[in-house]
Amino acid sequence: MFEKVKVDEKEYKRVPKDELFRVVKEIFVALNVPEEDAEIVADNLVMADLRGVESHGVQRLKRYVDGIKAGGVKVNPNIRVVKESPVYALIDGDEALGQVAAYRAMRLAIEKAKKNGIGVVGVRNSNHYGIAGYYAYKIAKEGLVGISMTTSRPLVAHTGAMEKFVGTNPIALGAPVEGQEEPFLLDMATSVVPSGKIEVYRRKNKPVPGEWAISTETGEIIHDPNEILSPKGAILPLGGLGELSGGHKGYGLAVLVDILSGVLMGATWSRHVGGTSDKHSDVGHFFMAIDPGAFGDADEFKRNMRKMIDELKNAKKHPRFERIWVHGEKGHLTAETRLKAGIPIYRKVYDEINAIAKELGVTPLS
Amino acid sequence: MFEKVKVDEKEYKRVPKDELFRVVKEIFVALNVPEEDAEIVADNLVMADLRGVESHGVQRLKRYVDGIKAGGVKVNPNIRVVKESPVYALIDGDEALGQVAAYRAMRLAIEKAKKNGIGVVGVRNSNHYGIAGYYAYKIAKEGLVGISMTTSRPLVAHTGAMEKFVGTNPIALGAPVEGQEEPFLLDMATSVVPSGKIEVYRRKNKPVPGEWAISTETGEIIHDPNEILSPKGAILPLGGLGELSGGHKGYGLAVLVDILSGVLMGATWSRHVGGTSDKHSDVGHFFMAIDPGAFGDADEFKRNMRKMIDELKNAKKHPRFERIWVHGEKGHLTAETRLKAGIPIYRKVYDEINAIAKELGVTPLS
Repeated sequence: MFEKVKVDEKEYKRVPKDELFRVVKEIFVALNVPEEDAEIVADNLVMADLRGVESHGVQRLKRYVDGIKAGGVKVNPNIRVVKESPVYALIDGDEALGQVAAYRAMRLAIEKAKKNGIGVVGVRNSNHYGIAGYYAYKIAKEGLVGISMTTSRPLVAHTGAMEKFVGTNPIALGAPVEGQEEPFLLDMATSVVPSGKIEVYRRKNKPVPGEWAISTETGEIIHDPNEILSPKGAILPLGGLGELSGGHKGYGLAVLVDILSGVLMGATWSRHVGGTSDKHSDVGHFFMAIDPGAFGDADEFKRNMRKMIDELKNAKKHPRFERIWVHGEKGHLTAETRLKAGIPIYRKVYDEINAIAKELGVTPLS
Repeated sequence: MFEKVKVDEKEYKRVPKDELFRVVKEIFVALNVPEEDAEIVADNLVMADLRGVESHGVQRLKRYVDGIKAGGVKVNPNIRVVKESPVYALIDGDEALGQVAAYRAMRLAIEKAKKNGIGVVGVRNSNHYGIAGYYAYKIAKEGLVGISMTTSRPLVAHTGAMEKFVGTNPIALGAPVEGQEEPFLLDMATSVVPSGKIEVYRRKNKPVPGEWAISTETGEIIHDPNEILSPKGAILPLGGLGELSGGHKGYGLAVLVDILSGVLMGATWSRHVGGTSDKHSDVGHFFMAIDPGAFGDADEFKRNMRKMIDELKNAKKHPRFERIWVHGEKGHLTAETRLKAGIPIYRKVYDEINAIAKELGVTPLS
């Protein structure tokens, strides 16, 4: 029984996965989202909570609901393929729920990769698409290597800057591994931490432990999560402040994501990327699926993934660490635990979801 | 007159670019490398020095020469396309000089992208290919978005480990920008610093300033460059030791590179990647070229790259920084300076090159 994040059972209520999925789905359906689309969004949000990425789970439900109510997110969008070849496509999301446009793009990338070895599909005019890893995971479950990236709202001060400017722009990569159902799964913000991690400290009213953010007024490192999340703070890129520990690399990776999922796809970038609950945000996504069988033998690929992972885990261990992890492992173990014990939902979020449910005539979480 | 790295003129000798290129090329030709291939390697090494990446420049010449002499690198390899489609290919490098196999793969990726929007070309059985940015730069100069990655020798202790295990596995991305000849160019090791940066401190006999490496015996942070570069030290991934500042992300990016350029391409990975001067190293590379015109309008892409870059540079500046840089800019300015003033070659390296030249009957650097 392992969980990625320690859960204080007093502060959380455990909900069975299927029940959480039902309520989230029904809430979207009540907002006139087609059932199939509601299932995609629910699957995406619940998967985040299941795997211990609380910041991208159902605690975001209210923002999505507000986005739909405010008209910034269309429930019956005209998602269409704007450009297409046997190996690539560009999709216009028409201000859909990000997950819905992204899912369609991801499916198309998978289809193309299965037929022609490679599929690159971009999306413009989209919204927040949840965890980047969701799509990389799904692609990997099809036996392909999956890449997923997205632009995101400006929260990070790039190297030399002193304002929220670039996004936390995540990069995710999934790949199938022999002998295990769950894929290798890297899913990382290109900032030193994702904003969700700071939200957790804000909720606990505790200073953040690392050098994660600066004041946008003095440029000094700050630790107060309220200040960091206010206009007075900005998160640092992976590598931290300045170039000494490679902050310019995290900055560069954020720009890489902005180029591939924003500029290349005709979507916007960095500080132009909007929120999810106000006006249209023009988020851009990038998906890539690669059939390992195109370059070599698909089974050998999986075998070598297995070998590589086992080697990484069995390296000479640092005494300060309990064990060596491989990406995706903590999420998989957390999901296993939560499928049995239920998904812990922060009590305030639980109440919030039930308030939304009641308002929309949906049977609340039991 | 800007140079990325401050040059102590007493320790260096400035050599005109063309003269440096001539000697390096002639040395390879004297080693029976075909003239065309010798030009590729010389261009690659000289470009590194020109742009201020001394660690990957002609100071590596001796290693390449030793590799050829030891038989680990073939001067007349049978480089062949093993698998191919209109958008992808796998090349077997047959233990060629890394640059030679990589250049061929890069050209093929460009050709495919120009015809079919996308080109992904991998290489197995290769060797050290110089700076990753060289290939991304060349692709970008063709008006395409270019990505270049390579596996590399184990020098980095991944999160939780206490030995040299994964490579410094670089990621490079180049993209054309309106109004400037030189592309946007990100070229980064996925470790906190590349090993070359530590070599510079070793030469100066100075401790490294950052938390860049650990002892493989105690796991503690160490600063002695000799120790770091010996079997007793290991570089840390981008993000540093443990997970507090995202060390697991740098580790994840190193694995991402190992998957795409190693496992996927039928090459080896992490600790199996060999050196360049001993036995065959089976390095793997990954190249991708994307035509921005496939997804949208190529001119608009360049215009928006221009806009994005100008915005990044004009963000509210942190008082501790002189200016805000964009990736590639320092290298371009350094190259401009050095084209006029000459490329600074460390005196020991200068002597080493001339010793090799004399031994091979090549006219030494004047």
